[in-house]
Amino acid sequence: MEKLHALYTFLDLAGTFVFAISGAVAAKQRGLDMFGICAIAFTVACGGGIIRDLCIGAIPPAGFTNWRYLVAAIISTGMTIGLYPLVQRLNHPVIFFDALGLSLFAVTGAQKTLAYGHNSEVAVLLGITTAVGGGVMRDILLNRVPIILEKEIYASAALVGALIVVAGNYFKWFSSDWVSIIALIVCFVLRLLALRYRWNLPVYSNDKTGSN
Amino acid sequence: MEKLHALYTFLDLAGTFVFAISGAVAAKQRGLDMFGICAIAFTVACGGGIIRDLCIGAIPPAGFTNWRYLVAAIISTGMTIGLYPLVQRLNHPVIFFDALGLSLFAVTGAQKTLAYGHNSEVAVLLGITTAVGGGVMRDILLNRVPIILEKEIYASAALVGALIVVAGNYFKWFSSDWVSIIALIVCFVLRLLALRYRWNLPVYSNDKTGSN
Amino acid sequence: MEKLHALYTFLDLAGTFVFAISGAVAAKQRGLDMFGICAIAFTVACGGGIIRDLCIGAIPPAGFTNWRYLVAAIISTGMTIGLYPLVQRLNHPVIFFDALGLSLFAVTGAQKTLAYGHNSEVAVLLGITTAVGGGVMRDILLNRVPIILEKEIYASAALVGALIVVAGNYFKWFSSDWVSIIALIVCFVLRLLALRYRWNLPVYSNDKTGSN
Repeated sequence: MEKLHALYTFLDLAGTFVFAISGAVAAKQRGLDMFGICAIAFTVACGGGIIRDLCIGAIPPAGFTNWRYLVAAIISTGMTIGLYPLVQRLNHPVIFFDALGLSLFAVTGAQKTLAYGHNSEVAVLLGITTAVGGGVMRDILLNRVPIILEKEIYASAALVGALIVVAGNYFKWFSSDWVSIIALIVCFVLRLLALRYRWNLPVYSNDKTGSN
Repeated sequence: MEKLHALYTFLDLAGTFVFAISGAVAAKQRGLDMFGICAIAFTVACGGGIIRDLCIGAIPPAGFTNWRYLVAAIISTGMTIGLYPLVQRLNHPVIFFDALGLSLFAVTGAQKTLAYGHNSEVAVLLGITTAVGGGVMRDILLNRVPIILEKEIYASAALVGALIVVAGNYFKWFSSDWVSIIALIVCFVLRLLALRYRWNLPVYSNDKTGSN
Repeated sequence: MEKLHALYTFLDLAGTFVFAISGAVAAKQRGLDMFGICAIAFTVACGGGIIRDLCIGAIPPAGFTNWRYLVAAIISTGMTIGLYPLVQRLNHPVIFFDALGLSLFAVTGAQKTLAYGHNSEVAVLLGITTAVGGGVMRDILLNRVPIILEKEIYASAALVGALIVVAGNYFKWFSSDWVSIIALIVCFVLRLLALRYRWNLPVYSNDKTGSN
């Protein structure tokens, strides 16, 4: 239990940090000011978790009460502004950090929902929400169609991660820690493979209804 | 009571289903992938209800806990993808389904808020929110000004429906079931008439302030 | 306590009213119909407070339960439509009303969060959220990048106001009333000075990474 808690805290903070960096990079590329960058970083980092906490009745949401989240958002804003050449040198930094945060949040979101005693369906849906909520908010604030609705397998990877968490906890194949780690790796690898090989879910465009 | 509950459940599921179809059609027309279509369908179907449940303290929101909503969203996604020529043959499918869902949700939203013991004002406002919330979310996600703010009498019809529910429950003219049915029909007919005859609320444009 | 409560109620209603006017003006300039103007006015006026109330567990949110908020929104809609030449004669009405509402809401938001027994960090973050939440919702609904992320010191002023409230309540320099008044004046003056002298937070654009 102690170990699970430590793992959970670590995953949650790591996810917060990488999501904050992805938000800060997107906001910086859009030319927002320092506060705007920090606000978008915080939104991406905590937005999904705040929606999850509102829905499971964890009031006030952890994103607001726990100073570590705010510090993670501020540090990643500072890093993105101060060490941008470094951040830039990583290939496609936004997308890479995004994939890592996605996996981390899908797993922790589903785990926390189960820990609050809700059923499997809620855990899967709120796992996805935790994972993609912040990114969707970022895209809404930056006034564009959310990337998750148009691009390669993204929320589907979060769905797979959350499903593994729920199935693992249901069938008790492994300890809860191992379930989390497996779900995390599967989701992350799936997302990276989707990016690498440009896997997309089928699109059903209007013009070609006949040919599909 | 039993009968009310059955009616309530039926109206809620029917509203979910038609709203999901309206969302799926809009997402398909925008060229989103399968997951994007399903996500928009689920958002339109459950978005307003989830906001309502958060505001009245029904935690976790019914949209997440009840597998029937998710199934309704998935089925309508499948229908919209697989049977699109059929869906298309209906004249202006999005707008028609939208009007039906609007009426159903305004009524069930106001009824549920009253059932949770909140006052009439909350019931009216959350009736409207349940009715238009999902559609507003759809338009925000698809990056356009919400249709309800620009087009023919829409949220106003939901307002009328919710007002009838609240007044009917307050003055006890009829049984609660009949109040729901009357409110539903009035709201639906009002919306269809507004579409047919292009009824609009007055617009106060800037340039013509003097002439209004 | 009585006096604090009266002051709190007054500030809250005044903030609601000026925010509603700012929302109504923006919606009118966009050519929305009467319902759309009223909806945007209500959203700007109560949106931030509703998010705050959901996050601190004040269910149902005050914006829905208290008829005075709705009346304030309706009156300001009427004023903006009927007395537009008057509203227009005020220089830059949207921005001026916005600054006043911003200060009022940052202070009342932080005070209410503290009154519900949450910690300082939650109070600061929800003070900012109360202040800018409605405006951000307005910009999302009108389909533009939120003004607060691009323009002169805005949310930063709310941050300063909320910080003064929290610090004042923590160190007990003055009575809570005086703390509110001081925070309000500092935030308002800071915002007006930022507008007057075009103070901006530093922007870190991509192209000039080397020169920054």
